[in-house]
Amino acid sequence: MVDLAPLLSVLGEDVVLVDPDRMAGYRWDRAHDPGAGMPLAVVRAGSTEDVQTAVRFAAEHGLAVVPRGAGSGLSGGSSAVDGCLVVSTERMTRVEVDPVTRTLVAEPGAMNAQVKAAAAEHDLWYPPDPSSYEICSIGGNVATNAGGLCCVKYGVTTDYVLGMTVVLADGTAVELGGPRLKDKAGLSLTKLFVGSEGTLGIVTRVVLRLIPAQRPPATLVATFATLDDATGTVLDITRQMRPSMLEFMDRPTINAVEDLTKMGLDREAAAMLVIQSDEPAGHAGVEIETITAICEKHGATEVFSTDDPEEGEAFVVARRNAIPAVERTGTLLLEDVGVPLPQLGALVDGIAAIAQAQGVTIAVIAHAGDGNTHPLIVFDPADAEMAARAQAAYGEVMTLAIELGGTITGEHGVGRLKKAWLGDQIGEDALELNRRVKQALDPQGILNPGAIF
Amino acid sequence: MVDLAPLLSVLGEDVVLVDPDRMAGYRWDRAHDPGAGMPLAVVRAGSTEDVQTAVRFAAEHGLAVVPRGAGSGLSGGSSAVDGCLVVSTERMTRVEVDPVTRTLVAEPGAMNAQVKAAAAEHDLWYPPDPSSYEICSIGGNVATNAGGLCCVKYGVTTDYVLGMTVVLADGTAVELGGPRLKDKAGLSLTKLFVGSEGTLGIVTRVVLRLIPAQRPPATLVATFATLDDATGTVLDITRQMRPSMLEFMDRPTINAVEDLTKMGLDREAAAMLVIQSDEPAGHAGVEIETITAICEKHGATEVFSTDDPEEGEAFVVARRNAIPAVERTGTLLLEDVGVPLPQLGALVDGIAAIAQAQGVTIAVIAHAGDGNTHPLIVFDPADAEMAARAQAAYGEVMTLAIELGGTITGEHGVGRLKKAWLGDQIGEDALELNRRVKQALDPQGILNPGAIF
Repeated sequence: MVDLAPLLSVLGEDVVLVDPDRMAGYRWDRAHDPGAGMPLAVVRAGSTEDVQTAVRFAAEHGLAVVPRGAGSGLSGGSSAVDGCLVVSTERMTRVEVDPVTRTLVAEPGAMNAQVKAAAAEHDLWYPPDPSSYEICSIGGNVATNAGGLCCVKYGVTTDYVLGMTVVLADGTAVELGGPRLKDKAGLSLTKLFVGSEGTLGIVTRVVLRLIPAQRPPATLVATFATLDDATGTVLDITRQMRPSMLEFMDRPTINAVEDLTKMGLDREAAAMLVIQSDEPAGHAGVEIETITAICEKHGATEVFSTDDPEEGEAFVVARRNAIPAVERTGTLLLEDVGVPLPQLGALVDGIAAIAQAQGVTIAVIAHAGDGNTHPLIVFDPADAEMAARAQAAYGEVMTLAIELGGTITGEHGVGRLKKAWLGDQIGEDALELNRRVKQALDPQGILNPGAIF
Repeated sequence: MVDLAPLLSVLGEDVVLVDPDRMAGYRWDRAHDPGAGMPLAVVRAGSTEDVQTAVRFAAEHGLAVVPRGAGSGLSGGSSAVDGCLVVSTERMTRVEVDPVTRTLVAEPGAMNAQVKAAAAEHDLWYPPDPSSYEICSIGGNVATNAGGLCCVKYGVTTDYVLGMTVVLADGTAVELGGPRLKDKAGLSLTKLFVGSEGTLGIVTRVVLRLIPAQRPPATLVATFATLDDATGTVLDITRQMRPSMLEFMDRPTINAVEDLTKMGLDREAAAMLVIQSDEPAGHAGVEIETITAICEKHGATEVFSTDDPEEGEAFVVARRNAIPAVERTGTLLLEDVGVPLPQLGALVDGIAAIAQAQGVTIAVIAHAGDGNTHPLIVFDPADAEMAARAQAAYGEVMTLAIELGGTITGEHGVGRLKKAWLGDQIGEDALELNRRVKQALDPQGILNPGAIF
């Protein structure tokens, strides 16, 4: 048993939690990984130096370190490991905006919503917007290269990260990049740490690029009698233009959301698209008209559009609430599979076939314009036989995505729950290359062991 | 002396050049590195397999491998090393567009202009646009994470690279990423290879993201009596909006361009800005009006604007021709320093002071909206004393940029000519981290030795 006294003496009892009851809240993320272990201690770091102290202690004693932001991850990337140090950045929440360089410096525990709000005070915008933006931290966003609804036009987290402070596996803190819009000095290490899920280092500070505030969007909602009509519409739109949002919900999702919101959605529709244009006034109208025509060409059963941002936002909120809405009907296994856009229809059809074959409900929502879907597999954990079928479906959906030239994870990360499929997707050579980089940066293998690798 | 017969027998005499006269054209890039060596052979690869054969041969015999695209690099990144294999990708020029996924697959020897033209056939656009776009290869663009004029709104090369085939130091060819708009499977290795200047692997195929064709831009040209007026204008613009181009030329540049083009530029102006807006019709006019007001507020001596794309393009061509125009006045040392935007004025003023102190002309052009400048140091190589002063100025400009919180290279790469300053900028810890990644991927150190590291 490792003696924590030296760590406690430096950081104090308020920072280092060892009481199992107090540590319970730090064992799982939203994936509820059944394999989560019991930490030796939870370090609630308040600074880069605290993180360094914790990592140095772990390196000295060969302890696993599991970095943790807000615990909103969906792939078990921050599930605790038995005997590990959980390093939580929840107390590191400072955010500072520099409107002149249009950059923002954030500590990793700041919520995505807090970052957006700080930018908005200066009429600036940090685009990446996971549906969970009110409860997910920017550190977690960086760790998973998080996406969201606006990515179809505005890109993902890595597109906005200009620099960072990162604590390496030996406790060294390194500054990478900075508030420079172009910087080609040395290897692209900032980009390497984005999306590394805490396996290469712990990010304790990020410099983010901001852009001018988004214009108020116009919104279009369309329903379709068949999945093919909806996916055909998506392809026809993305071929011609760049909407600022292009979201998809299937019938089980529509019904779950309608149960929750009673907003009058068409329960009989096979699919619904929620689309926005943030082009300048006048031109947004033209774009929405074009999209209306495309929807009608593909046999939309209903098309509604509005340039009232509040009215439009109600549909976006409905879409964002899809996961909690479906979660009311059972326990979820959350997928994050993506395909090249022309395969979107085949993916959605294939998922329906898997659901039928396994006898489980799979509700599908999608960032359709990116080809990135979130099939939500619903099951009753008390029914072991059903849970096994849900687990089988979980694997089959990933295998299907790989067969269609797609990915097992578009924006949630591999974490611990998807790693068994990673090699099938990227191949042994690419996996080996991943391992070589991991080995070079964390030779002891103490950083988030079991995640990705 | 290594026996090349086995290499020749596999690849043939048309592919493997050993005649010093024929190899002469493969020793230098546009930086004319005086330290360039004489290759043992030049391999004009026609395929990924050819590159693998060359790299395996080099690995077996411990030969240096210098990858080479079009040889248009500006930092000596493809200067030959004595006894190396130069691996040229000039024959690998295939480009294929998939309009449905809005992606493009290119071999590395394809010119940037060829990639743009192939995309344009489908009303699509590959934005990154180095001034040298007609003579620079997409492989070189990926190796240096090249930028250009449109980056102020549309980002740099890495923002458009979705996947690649890369030949590693042991000759293994690995596929990374693919035509998926979001993909978080494993570490961000695609991003790591972008900008690695041939030191980690040789990219033999890239998958690029395309966006819908750019709208025809409106153009504004403004001249200023002082540098401060011009840089103040830049800051006021970037604070409020995202022009699609925001370029700067100082007086020596204006005069060199006017000597070449006789287009009637104001030779007395201290600085000129060339600005474009590609907002939709109507809205571009509003943006140009706002920019006009900002220019006038900062005392512009003349403001001219046009929504005729051809008339506007003439000014953009003038800006793109700045380097060749200045090159007519002497030999150039090309800089690529960048700073956080608020320091742009201090950088430009400081460069003028360095020019005066060293008694050399330094013409400054800049992608002003990115804070990325290209000071062009003019000297006569026959005058050894002047050449020494030019070299001193070259270092002083980089030191100044570092002091202002900037970078020694925004988009050209470190290559061989800037590496002495890399540690000053990024610090010893970050440099060591660069070395660890290099060591992990190229333990023999055969890939482009002397570049970056």
